[in-house]
Amino acid sequence: MTTRAPASALCGIWPALLTPLTASLAIDHARLAAHCRSLLAAGCGGVTPFGTTGEGPSFSLAERRRAVDALVARGVPPARILVSVSCAALPETLALTRHALAIGAHGCLMMPPFFLKSVSDQGIIDAYRYVIDGASDARLKLYLYHIPQVSGVPLSQAVVATLSRLYPRTIVGIKDSGCVRDDSLALAAAFMPALAVYVGNEPDLPELGRRGSTGAVSGLANFIPRLVHRLVMAPDAPGTAGDLERVKALLAWLGGYSLTPALKGIMAALTGERGWLRVRPPLVALTEQQFAALERELCAFAIDPMTD
Amino acid sequence: MTTRAPASALCGIWPALLTPLTASLAIDHARLAAHCRSLLAAGCGGVTPFGTTGEGPSFSLAERRRAVDALVARGVPPARILVSVSCAALPETLALTRHALAIGAHGCLMMPPFFLKSVSDQGIIDAYRYVIDGASDARLKLYLYHIPQVSGVPLSQAVVATLSRLYPRTIVGIKDSGCVRDDSLALAAAFMPALAVYVGNEPDLPELGRRGSTGAVSGLANFIPRLVHRLVMAPDAPGTAGDLERVKALLAWLGGYSLTPALKGIMAALTGERGWLRVRPPLVALTEQQFAALERELCAFAIDPMTD
Repeated sequence: MTTRAPASALCGIWPALLTPLTASLAIDHARLAAHCRSLLAAGCGGVTPFGTTGEGPSFSLAERRRAVDALVARGVPPARILVSVSCAALPETLALTRHALAIGAHGCLMMPPFFLKSVSDQGIIDAYRYVIDGASDARLKLYLYHIPQVSGVPLSQAVVATLSRLYPRTIVGIKDSGCVRDDSLALAAAFMPALAVYVGNEPDLPELGRRGSTGAVSGLANFIPRLVHRLVMAPDAPGTAGDLERVKALLAWLGGYSLTPALKGIMAALTGERGWLRVRPPLVALTEQQFAALERELCAFAIDPMTD
Repeated sequence: MTTRAPASALCGIWPALLTPLTASLAIDHARLAAHCRSLLAAGCGGVTPFGTTGEGPSFSLAERRRAVDALVARGVPPARILVSVSCAALPETLALTRHALAIGAHGCLMMPPFFLKSVSDQGIIDAYRYVIDGASDARLKLYLYHIPQVSGVPLSQAVVATLSRLYPRTIVGIKDSGCVRDDSLALAAAFMPALAVYVGNEPDLPELGRRGSTGAVSGLANFIPRLVHRLVMAPDAPGTAGDLERVKALLAWLGGYSLTPALKGIMAALTGERGWLRVRPPLVALTEQQFAALERELCAFAIDPMTD
């Protein structure tokens, strides 16, 4: 697994980290750091804490800051951390952004404030301006985050265009987790290479890779980082068609589960660490019985921790 | 305007407060307290800061705590404050709940965590348990808050039934802002009088009043508290049919606007204080031109600040 040298935007795989919890449902700093180190050792470009897959908005501002500090204290290089800073309240997003800058993180991933719905493009632009102008730091690299099926607040192309015109050096990329391939391709056509476009939906990675996308912030990369890397970085290599079929089968199977609890179940199965099963409400952890079934079914996918 | 003595749940009108802002988009504590005092003087039972109309989740934990403290410091009796404690992150909801208890607030209004969607009933129940068990205080009065068109996370009757069985002394009421009359009537039939049911949709207040609802947490009550009071407390009084038609006409007109900016525009028009126009992103304030139009159109409703 190789990584290309990032110019300004990230290259390679930056997994959307699952967040391991202690028995009291606090963040398990030691396990999270070990997970990051193992992903970096597997060739990942960096890691992305507190995205959607990582239950990010389920954690308080204080918990999120402390957890990022704990990663750095436990040896994860800050330049290899992309901090997901999305909150309902902009002062908290701004505080997380300032904190990311203070520790020297690679950058920040931000979706629009997600409580109020049917907001206008102008309101979304104002929200990003609040954070970018508030941080007022030339080092800030911001990635726009589009995941309307969860946030309820889509990012239009007009918003992306306006923000990248207003802040050409700050806005470096877009993470499109909308899972609508035509939208992703249209984004890529409209904005690459001025902006980097990354897709969250792993089956779309080869096509995006062919069009110049050079990385991914991916949930599946928590446990198959090399495979996800091949999908986007080597879309036409001999083995990639097979990798693509494996990922599609995996996602079809996961569709029968609530995603984050199932991904944590896979981590528990692959590592033997049952603590991975814990989730914070409003998610519900797999029961013993569900976990046993998942562990059995997982065998069919023959995940190889050395090559996948 | 009279208020009945509340047994455990609130009685009368507790407006869903609009949140006035300073030029830097911080909460204007002085104006908010003055607004509360004026509503209490108009006969409101209490006030409800930080609901949906009040852009509650747009403010940080720290801002929300400070603003509630500032209300008390400026003479608003804590027992007449119902604190909306809803956040995406449960530790922040718990912190707001503990703070409300510490200052002696009447109670707390809580919607489920609103970032993740398609969560299960069990996950929602677990979320409420996290807060109620975490607070662990016999004085806590909690109101469940159903507003799925904004939160994206509906409360089912099964959730309400389970929570009120688990915590019969803590869960005292439900605020139903779903704006589906049949749902509100079904909730009332299923749970009153064990739980108090309040509807957010003002045109449904008379029918709920006839079925025993004794109050409202209402957005329109920011500027027509007496009229809203009559709708629910005197649904069959001679003037109420006329009041109901006026409220329906007002809402039909407001349907052409983004609600909170328009309600703030009405406050600005009625008080002459232009500062009321400010909103926090992702909302967008009325432009000068829009405000001028709103002010003109508002005249048609002949709002009387002494009797409405």
